[in-house]
Order: sequence, then structure tokens, then C-alpha cells
Amino acid sequence: MSTDYDPHASSLTGTTDEAVLAELYAIRGSIDNIDASLVYLLAERFKFTQRVGELKARHDLPPSDPGREAAQIARLHALARDADLEPEFAEKFLTFIIAEVIRHHRAIAEADAGQDGPADG
Amino acid sequence: MSTDYDPHASSLTGTTDEAVLAELYAIRGSIDNIDASLVYLLAERFKFTQRVGELKARHDLPPSDPGREAAQIARLHALARDADLEPEFAEKFLTFIIAEVIRHHRAIAEADAGQDGPADG
Repeated sequence: MSTDYDPHASSLTGTTDEAVLAELYAIRGSIDNIDASLVYLLAERFKFTQRVGELKARHDLPPSDPGREAAQIARLHALARDADLEPEFAEKFLTFIIAEVIRHHRAIAEADAGQDGPADG
Repeated sequence: MSTDYDPHASSLTGTTDEAVLAELYAIRGSIDNIDASLVYLLAERFKFTQRVGELKARHDLPPSDPGREAAQIARLHALARDADLEPEFAEKFLTFIIAEVIRHHRAIAEADAGQDGPADG
């Protein structure tokens, strides 16, 4: 990736005590590492949902799978409680991702001669 | 976490060729593993932004840091290109997370006698 990222980029520079800034930069370094992990995981997730989209298109399976989606949401709630994340946020997050998956699947379907897009979050 | 999750939960059961379902379940197993990783990473990320919120409140630092945010967005675009993820999606994702961070920081600020909430995505 581009190497011109400045991990200390901040509008606070020069206005704030150096020791406080150092603590802020240290925490931000961890946030940056997590963000890189999230981006790579999301990219991998979309590769798998792309495969689901192709499989469904090939076998004329229906776009949505309510039984699957209900199980996913219940599982994410349980995982979130374990991880000390708000379960409502975990569900909002899954909904956000599934909306993107549906957008991708619509694109697959359009490329596949106008048939309905399969959605599988 | 709860162990009553059924990774084969599906409204397709009984309506679809077993071999096709087996392929679908295999892909979904990978999606489920990625989702668990995402939930734990997000929980960890919110712990760090919580620390940023507390640091900013303690030192009366401004809620937003436009210099930081611009650098984060440019970096996420570069990471997304490397990971083969749409850069626009990576940016939408960061915006989604930051909105949640701001919500958390508002809650910290309200608990902290009604001062403005520090935001640091």
C-alpha cells in the first residue's frame, strides 16, 4: 500500500501537550492496526459472498434465505455479548454489510442478463 | 457464547440438491468465521476509541480532528485497493464506525456532566 500515511497526522499538533499527544498517537496506532485487519477481513468476506451469489445464480436459488438470516442475527447477538460489544450494534453492522452484499449481487445479476440478484449476507 | 447456533439453518433445506447445499454450507462456514473475527475486532476497536474519548475529556481536547480523519480516509482507500475491496465501501464503512464512536462519546460526555462529546474515529 501507499507509504505516505502519517500516523501522527492531527489538527492538534502544536496546540496540545506533547505527552498527551504521545498517548493519543499510541492508541491511534492500535486503532490503525485494527482498521487494516478489518479491511482485509471484509475483502475476504466479499469474496465468499461473491461465490454464494454465483452458486445461487447457477442453480436458480432464491435471493434471500430468511432461515439463514435469523440464525446469523441470533449468533451475532451472542458473539457480541461475549465480546462486550452492544448486540444492537452487531446487528446494525450485519445489516450494513448485507446491504452491500445485495448491491454486489445485483451487479452480478445485471451482468448475468437481467435476472434477479441473489442475496446471501 | 451460546452453542445453539445451527450453521446449516436455511429456508432452502429440502428444496435444493444436497450437493449444492453442501457447497453453500461450506462457504457459509467461512463467512461465519469471518463474522466472529469482525465482531471481536470491532469490540477491541471500541475499547481503544473509548480510551481516546476519556483522554480527550480529561485534557479538554476538541471532539473532532479533521487532520486525523483525512489521513485515515486516504489510508483506508489505499488499504482497500490492496485488499481488492471497493475504496468507496471502505470509506462508507469508516463513516459507519465513526458515527457509532460519536454516539459512544456523547454517552461518555453526558455521564461527564453535560460537556460536548469528543469524537475520534
